[in-house]
Amino acid sequence: MKDKNISVAVIRRLPKYHRYLKEMLDNDIKRISSKELSKMIGFTASQIRQDLNNFGGFGQQGYGYNVEDLYNEIGKILGLTRQYNVVIVGAGNLGQALANYSSFDRLGFKLQAMFDVNPKVIGLKINNVEVMDMDKFEQFVDENNVEIVYICTSRDGAQEVADKIQKTKVRAIWNFAPVDLKLKSDIIVENIHLIDNLLTVSYFLKENLE
Amino acid sequence: MKDKNISVAVIRRLPKYHRYLKEMLDNDIKRISSKELSKMIGFTASQIRQDLNNFGGFGQQGYGYNVEDLYNEIGKILGLTRQYNVVIVGAGNLGQALANYSSFDRLGFKLQAMFDVNPKVIGLKINNVEVMDMDKFEQFVDENNVEIVYICTSRDGAQEVADKIQKTKVRAIWNFAPVDLKLKSDIIVENIHLIDNLLTVSYFLKENLE
Repeated sequence: MKDKNISVAVIRRLPKYHRYLKEMLDNDIKRISSKELSKMIGFTASQIRQDLNNFGGFGQQGYGYNVEDLYNEIGKILGLTRQYNVVIVGAGNLGQALANYSSFDRLGFKLQAMFDVNPKVIGLKINNVEVMDMDKFEQFVDENNVEIVYICTSRDGAQEVADKIQKTKVRAIWNFAPVDLKLKSDIIVENIHLIDNLLTVSYFLKENLE
Repeated sequence: MKDKNISVAVIRRLPKYHRYLKEMLDNDIKRISSKELSKMIGFTASQIRQDLNNFGGFGQQGYGYNVEDLYNEIGKILGLTRQYNVVIVGAGNLGQALANYSSFDRLGFKLQAMFDVNPKVIGLKINNVEVMDMDKFEQFVDENNVEIVYICTSRDGAQEVADKIQKTKVRAIWNFAPVDLKLKSDIIVENIHLIDNLLTVSYFLKENLE
């Protein structure tokens, strides 16, 4: 595969391209120059040309990029050519919010179940998906070929969930708990550390005042 | 201020130091070497020494870092020496989840109100904070010295909120809507683009299989 050597920095920019290209497709825009793309997306035109050259130069001199081709190619690189079975652990407000995001489903991330330890939420249906007892987690994920777990527990519960995950065939964790999980195996982890992000807001606020 | 020239990359690492140092303080750990810190936090010891040297060399040869001093100093740099008044726009699941995070409050981010356009949620109290009609937004934030707005609306509603914010004295936006806001003034924006992060998960999953 020619995208094996793309740097992580480029990869992390691709979803933004993907998002803007989707918007263009929805607005029936067929082609776009790197200059126009630059104006919309906020990267420099030369950055865009460099990024997109990584997977085979879609741009043509004087024509620009074919929006649909580029959208599809970036989707392929991001692994969006198939579906992923997903479960959420932690059916509190955050877990429920994620269960209700229709865009995840549209992109192929298919929510199969939610899990919790709290008897008050076990048995509830959120967006047609059942909240199950955490006791059934390991059996369920292996029987249903679940590949990704979104961890939406409190800080204290998250490592315990991670330990359970390591006993299953789950291959990736999307972690929202404010803790860095300790994982032995080669499980992929992406963290959304909300507080880390909020503290950069207060930093910039402070800097702007000085 | 000596931290004026610290790079944004370093700033974005500081909340992680802050988080680990808090944990050490809670566990009554008084001092720590860059080597031990490296083991816990996952940055190299030389990276840590470099990062922390940016604000005046807390480490002493053969002693390591004084945990409390370092925690306080990083807190100062991150602007945590005072309180920030905050409101949330969008009282759905995500807004409610953020309203319930006690750690934001503990760090000084004080939630003053929530706002929504949906009559079904206006008037509710979430974690003792009232959900108000969006019509009252501009007056409320200026009368209550609100500095930060968390935008938890859908994609379609977010720009409208941003436009309203620009008519107020609000200085920063923490944006959870999957859209890049267009802002004229010098308002600080930090985005949590969930989908962008999720698409890196599918990328890594795909790469791991090949």
